[in-house]
Amino acid sequence: MDPRGLAVSFQDVVDAAKRIEAYVHRTPVLTCKSLDRLYGARLFFKCENFQKIGAFKIRGATNAVFSLHEEQARRGVATHSSGNHAAALAQAARWRGIPCYVVMPESAPQVKKRAVEGYGATITYCHPTLEARERALGEVVERTGAFFIPPYDHPLVIAGQGTAALELWEEVKELDAIVVPVGGGGLISGTAIALSSIAPGVRILGGEPERADDAIRSLKLGRIVRPENPDTIADGLRTSLGEFTFPIIQRLVHAIYPVSEKSIVRAMRDIWERMKIVVEPSAAVALAAVSEAGGELQGKRIGVILSGGNVDLDRLPFGIL
Amino acid sequence: MDPRGLAVSFQDVVDAAKRIEAYVHRTPVLTCKSLDRLYGARLFFKCENFQKIGAFKIRGATNAVFSLHEEQARRGVATHSSGNHAAALAQAARWRGIPCYVVMPESAPQVKKRAVEGYGATITYCHPTLEARERALGEVVERTGAFFIPPYDHPLVIAGQGTAALELWEEVKELDAIVVPVGGGGLISGTAIALSSIAPGVRILGGEPERADDAIRSLKLGRIVRPENPDTIADGLRTSLGEFTFPIIQRLVHAIYPVSEKSIVRAMRDIWERMKIVVEPSAAVALAAVSEAGGELQGKRIGVILSGGNVDLDRLPFGIL
Repeated sequence: MDPRGLAVSFQDVVDAAKRIEAYVHRTPVLTCKSLDRLYGARLFFKCENFQKIGAFKIRGATNAVFSLHEEQARRGVATHSSGNHAAALAQAARWRGIPCYVVMPESAPQVKKRAVEGYGATITYCHPTLEARERALGEVVERTGAFFIPPYDHPLVIAGQGTAALELWEEVKELDAIVVPVGGGGLISGTAIALSSIAPGVRILGGEPERADDAIRSLKLGRIVRPENPDTIADGLRTSLGEFTFPIIQRLVHAIYPVSEKSIVRAMRDIWERMKIVVEPSAAVALAAVSEAGGELQGKRIGVILSGGNVDLDRLPFGIL
Repeated sequence: MDPRGLAVSFQDVVDAAKRIEAYVHRTPVLTCKSLDRLYGARLFFKCENFQKIGAFKIRGATNAVFSLHEEQARRGVATHSSGNHAAALAQAARWRGIPCYVVMPESAPQVKKRAVEGYGATITYCHPTLEARERALGEVVERTGAFFIPPYDHPLVIAGQGTAALELWEEVKELDAIVVPVGGGGLISGTAIALSSIAPGVRILGGEPERADDAIRSLKLGRIVRPENPDTIADGLRTSLGEFTFPIIQRLVHAIYPVSEKSIVRAMRDIWERMKIVVEPSAAVALAAVSEAGGELQGKRIGVILSGGNVDLDRLPFGIL
């Protein structure tokens, strides 16, 4: 518990970092002069696309799985996820040697389905609605006694996700701002918890697809709203904020910028062409937000968390440019 | 001059490394457990896709440009190239502050044309035949007095390309073999010169598209043969060996493996999906050769030079799989 009344404290992030360090990569921070010129800022990219399972989600999942008591753990873990959290939980469960059950929409990208199966999880497919997922998950948990670890809305998951920003800050220190993509809010709330205590001068910024701008609307309205048919290429960011992530974001995040689909694909292409690395659309949302922020970030030193690199190479979006 | 009668010596590579170190990146060596499992070997990837201009070619071009006497240099440099060498020479010339003239086939990938223009070179387009290129180049050299720096068949270029293998060896040391793509032979002959003296136990291996297998046929016949209509996706490897590269390859290279188009695209896709990095088809040829080599390399420690990452994102080849 945070002294400010939030569900996650800076110490929770530090504890998470220790708990997961033997399992996850300390990913590199890359820079790229040509992108700096193009975006008018000094950019420091935390490359979670190089992370185990190809995304930062392994941090929160590993922290949660290794926090369970032995007796709880033995019955396994379960989740619903559009992809990266599922792969992450499956991998973390395999490391601990416990069963993992995943409820996944039939529409999830093939590459993500294969990854989850490859890590040895048992998959239950459902219709791609939140209601169908929750029903299927309830049945799985009841049948198996597995412990539900949600994709983002859990203090241990949030604390785990915060370790990426902690590492970035340890490596770069002098940052004016950090920008991360916003879906359910796990990464940005973990980031905010990690940096607001040790580096209170760093602005905590988010990028969100304007086609799934529920977080921006939630902040305006002061209550969690769900995205309506979020039709964005950033498939990791279609979820709404949660009971744990929303208050942290309300308190600690300075701004969330809406980004267009074109802007996401443009940023993704810039990263692929100039940095020669593969990132998924959701990761590119953070860089897209740097342009949307406009003048405010010009010439500044900005941390950008490239959240993942799991993209279906048979369905690349560059045609829309 | 090498004591063994070759046109390039180990000392030339060491001199090149000193000459270029202020300009080019010391690129990282990456490893990937999942690719190790898939290819059955311990792979060390020298990531020249992260190099300046996106390819190893900057090494040879920079070595050549900074070796010129002041008076020679002032009139500029010229070359013909399907792409990466042109960008490399343009960038090196800009670093030295001298003019650069490039003759390029109209059919070169858009991304490579833009790069060369971006570095400030003057482009002359020609038909995509060797004869048309050479004629156009002759005219440019006569008109400007520029110094011709060929894409691969020059001792200074070869020595420069050898610096990649030197760095890889300095970092990894215990290698059983090194595998590089073979086009005109600049990279593999530089690699051979760099490693055969300091690490004579390392097998020097090449990969060549079977649709442009002129190097393999040249070695068999004992004379340089030109590829006939080389129709391979590995657009950097369509050239024939040269007067300088051929004898070095004859003397020092242990084997060159032919690889199919499917095998190239498969290797490229494996690298993109598992390492989350962007490499061009020519670079993937080296990994494809690891599979073609079969049993010989199983379980071995293998250096793989990923030669470049300049790929046209609008024309990706994954559909052929």
